[in-house]
Amino acid sequence: MAINKNIEDIKYKYKNYLLQSGNLFLINKKNIIYNSSIISKKSKNAIISPVVKANGYGMGVLTITNILIELGYKKIFLANIAEGIEVRKKFKNIEIYILNVGKPFNTNILKKYKLIPVINSLEEIKIWIENSQKKDSCILHIDTAMNRLGISYSEVLDKQNKILFHKLNIKYVMTHLACAEEKKNILNLKQLKEFKKCAKILSKITKCSIKSSICNSSGLWLGSKYILDLVRPGAAFWGINPQNNKQNPLKEAVSLYAQITQIKKISKNSSIGYGQTVKMKKDTIIATISLGYSHGFSRLLSNKGSVYIGNKKINVLGRISMDLTVIDISKFTYGEIRTGDLVEIFGPNRSLEKFAKENKTIPYEMLCNMGKNIPKMIV
Amino acid sequence: MAINKNIEDIKYKYKNYLLQSGNLFLINKKNIIYNSSIISKKSKNAIISPVVKANGYGMGVLTITNILIELGYKKIFLANIAEGIEVRKKFKNIEIYILNVGKPFNTNILKKYKLIPVINSLEEIKIWIENSQKKDSCILHIDTAMNRLGISYSEVLDKQNKILFHKLNIKYVMTHLACAEEKKNILNLKQLKEFKKCAKILSKITKCSIKSSICNSSGLWLGSKYILDLVRPGAAFWGINPQNNKQNPLKEAVSLYAQITQIKKISKNSSIGYGQTVKMKKDTIIATISLGYSHGFSRLLSNKGSVYIGNKKINVLGRISMDLTVIDISKFTYGEIRTGDLVEIFGPNRSLEKFAKENKTIPYEMLCNMGKNIPKMIV
Repeated sequence: MAINKNIEDIKYKYKNYLLQSGNLFLINKKNIIYNSSIISKKSKNAIISPVVKANGYGMGVLTITNILIELGYKKIFLANIAEGIEVRKKFKNIEIYILNVGKPFNTNILKKYKLIPVINSLEEIKIWIENSQKKDSCILHIDTAMNRLGISYSEVLDKQNKILFHKLNIKYVMTHLACAEEKKNILNLKQLKEFKKCAKILSKITKCSIKSSICNSSGLWLGSKYILDLVRPGAAFWGINPQNNKQNPLKEAVSLYAQITQIKKISKNSSIGYGQTVKMKKDTIIATISLGYSHGFSRLLSNKGSVYIGNKKINVLGRISMDLTVIDISKFTYGEIRTGDLVEIFGPNRSLEKFAKENKTIPYEMLCNMGKNIPKMIV
Repeated sequence: MAINKNIEDIKYKYKNYLLQSGNLFLINKKNIIYNSSIISKKSKNAIISPVVKANGYGMGVLTITNILIELGYKKIFLANIAEGIEVRKKFKNIEIYILNVGKPFNTNILKKYKLIPVINSLEEIKIWIENSQKKDSCILHIDTAMNRLGISYSEVLDKQNKILFHKLNIKYVMTHLACAEEKKNILNLKQLKEFKKCAKILSKITKCSIKSSICNSSGLWLGSKYILDLVRPGAAFWGINPQNNKQNPLKEAVSLYAQITQIKKISKNSSIGYGQTVKMKKDTIIATISLGYSHGFSRLLSNKGSVYIGNKKINVLGRISMDLTVIDISKFTYGEIRTGDLVEIFGPNRSLEKFAKENKTIPYEMLCNMGKNIPKMIV
């Protein structure tokens, strides 16, 4: 039986991928383009520099960078040198900013791969000055609330450091919002004000009008005064909801499917899976799908999680295995569902946002964790 | 300050890897060899065919297959066709068994890459017979308790199926234990008995003495009558404890480190990270490490998890970010710990087993989930 036309199309169109690993991510390029247009509107005249770190939020940094370049983006943020080298080898003409250069702070490797560092500490400034030319630009990161990476407000104020800042060619000064998802949180404005003061001081010291950046994805929804010169959206391209407890203004761009690899009728009192953690109360039709905890389908969902067939919610039975999960398809008559049919993990029937909540986490973590060992198709 | 000599050695020896991503898996080959020798003893005269699925339990299927070949193993089990193709392209002379061929059951691709299927259903037998020669061998999987993959006992007994089994060239018949970690669980013996009956029936039908396999890693500790002709250890090579609530007879072969990328003194009442979920009760020295939830350091450990510096347990502060985590290093005096120093996630101070428990899961899932985006060094 065709579950629905759309899923039958997927099954047919991507059969060569599905037969290899039995599961598939669909990356909806139209939705990325839609999200990109919303980001673009929100960003006014600011430069948009997408964040593609953590292997493109799990979806493959090269694939995603390629899409973003097609959409006209020319500057991207990456997490570390390893990602920088990988992307630079493939893409020669984009600007790459490295958020966390790592230790030892290695100027040679940055230069070799034309990577622009985000400088996070006085210690890093000193090394950078010693080993670079005045023309070599950097981004300076001010820590205004995260207490994670960046130079502190008091370090910016400290007159002893003037000589250091003066020697830098600062392309942008940036900070990172700690509570941008909460529009009403007063911290946002506090961070903005402190950051602007820092930018002003640094402009004075360097005698340049330094450009600045505070917005991550969620920051774009805080109002136009947060936009500044450059914005750094990441999650918004994937359609992850930028605001807590509000309807998502974006379109989720990823869905995940797994194939049914076996169907069985089992009798009352049968157990399922490792440790026999569940016993059937009646005769049951079960299906085994090609997805397990090694794909990020968390073992904590054992006997609790669900998938979708058509618009029907189908429960997980027993412990989730490394690459297999058993589900209860008794809602269908025997023969109605066949091996090779697809189940949805998230997609049209359950948003990534909802699935993340069921996993007691956020869509960011779900994406990063589920991107492994699963083929990805751009549709 | 040197935390201890060992960790200083690691820091120095692998500095080129550490500077790229700020984190590092060490795969201890000596311990794999030790575990291999224990597996070998336990396996008596049986053939040992390692299971290297889920990208070699997250550690890289090619790297691990290479080590296993060096140790003399010539037959391996993989999860699916995708893994089969990847390994076959690199290694021409080993036997590769595919546990879950996927749908549609594709005989051509199996032959093209010389992959031997584990056949899990009558449906698959029919396709295999139609599209293969009598000489093409397969492994037949009998489901004796898992209710996951495999042919049922009743299907083996069913006389109608004789003609199907008769046409197969069965290299091995296998089943999978559901509770092998629990030595006293009566299910183990029940599965063994039912499985042996199946093997006997199939030997009679095919007029061959069919070889058989029931043991996963834990099965090897159930006693010699479980050994049979072939054993399929996977986790045991990594030193994952094969028995519940017993001392581990194996040596864990993996440890994980992350680099301190920044150190700060912050004042009383400062908050840390996204959502300001923690407020300092006193002036605190914090460090930011290059590891986050995108590396599988679960966000559920926010404000709860820990790492080790030397033999000191160091707490996580605030929410774990995508690729960064903040820790409280006030146990040390300022200056005692420096950027570039390494913290241990699991290793000599905390076993993978213990770390998995802190994550409410099993070492298998931890390994699979933490293998992403982190360089691995064989030491």
